[in-house]
Order: sequence, then C-alpha cells, then structure tokens
Amino acid sequence: MNIPSTSCYAVYAVIFISKRSAQESEYPETAKRMLKLAQEQPGFLGVVSARREDGVGVTISYWADERSIRAWRDQSEHQQARLKGRTKWYEGYSVQIAKIERAYSLDKTDKSAFVSKGLTNGE
Amino acid sequence: MNIPSTSCYAVYAVIFISKRSAQESEYPETAKRMLKLAQEQPGFLGVVSARREDGVGVTISYWADERSIRAWRDQSEHQQARLKGRTKWYEGYSVQIAKIERAYSLDKTDKSAFVSKGLTNGE
Repeated sequence: MNIPSTSCYAVYAVIFISKRSAQESEYPETAKRMLKLAQEQPGFLGVVSARREDGVGVTISYWADERSIRAWRDQSEHQQARLKGRTKWYEGYSVQIAKIERAYSLDKTDKSAFVSKGLTNGE
Repeated sequence: MNIPSTSCYAVYAVIFISKRSAQESEYPETAKRMLKLAQEQPGFLGVVSARREDGVGVTISYWADERSIRAWRDQSEHQQARLKGRTKWYEGYSVQIAKIERAYSLDKTDKSAFVSKGLTNGE
C-alpha cells in the first residue's frame, strides 16, 4: 500500500472528520484543486481518505512539521475553500493535529492506498 | 456530529488504514464484536471509520492514555482477530499511534458520526 514509506518519516498527522451536506456545488473541483495544492506544499508527505455513503468522511494528511501544517492552513486559496466548507459543504467537521509517536505496518502488495506527491486521489 | 465532545478530551488517536482483501469470511461479525469489546475497554473514548469502494478503509479510535491503547492491543480476543486480519482480511495496513496536540471543530447539527461507548457503528 506504500503507506509505510510515507508514515515512517511523517511526524504529524492532521485528522479531518467531516459530514457532507447535500450542497454539492463546486465541491468536487475544489477538492481536486486542494489536493493538487497540498501536494505542492513544503512538508506535505501524503494523504489518505474515505467517505461513507451517509456523507461522513475521514481524511488523514501527513506532514513533516508543524510549520508546514500552519503554512497550509494559511495558504490563501485553501482559506477560501475552508470558508466554503464551513458555510456550504459540511454539516460539521472535526480537526485534530496529532504527533505520531510510533507506527507499524504490513504490506502484502505494492498497491498504494496513498496519495503522496505526484499521485492522484483514489477516492 | 458529537465529535468535539469526544475529541476535546481525547489524548491519543490510533489511526488504522487498511486495504481489505477479497476474503470476507467471518470479517463482519468479528468487526462488530471488536467494536463492542473496544467500547468496554477502560480509556476508550470513541471511534469513527469509513471505507472506500476499492477496499481502502480509515479508522480512527480515540483513547485517554497510552496504557489503554496497550491494554486493548494485548486483549486476547483482539489479538486473535488481529492475527486473522494479518493473515486473511487485509492485503495491507498501517497503524500510527499519535498524540493529539490541538483540535477544533464545527457542528451545525447534533447528528453523530461517532461511535462512542454504547452507540453502534455507522459503517
């Protein structure tokens, strides 16, 4: 799954849990654009996400340090997208910034569940 | 979504990213049983999970302290389930134990995306 290669040197995980509202307008293209922008950010290491049929989604992004996380939070286009998220796209969300203390993994294949720099989102 | 009420006092998040294999036997009932067992563990604060159609799933469980996480890892029935996970149910997985440093949230509704003690899994 290629997860170990990213998570082993990732220091921080940003956990984003959200519940989508019925409002779909602009969401897919913005999500795609934000993924591309995140991949260009210094310190971005990878992301994995999944969404249930009831609209609840879980996204984990991995970062090298706190500074990278703050820089991404403050990126102007991302700020505009976050505002639309708050007002239009999400019924609710929860964000946790967490420091990875240890990690382990098993990989029987070489298929990637991960979106790291240059790869496309599997969602 | 009731996420703030749990994540605000959660100290640790266990991130479990997995890729299911085609082997379905026993998985659903074991997953249900493990959820029930986890909810009975001291220090368990909540869980949220989502799985994509391609078999990739993300589960975050929240815990009060490291001791609770270790006790759950070493719980005998959970150990047996983890062995089956490694050998049968998963093509691969990645686990990260992370300490939550800060958290914020927005909640426009009171619908819960969360499985905390006594609630059932939305997946």
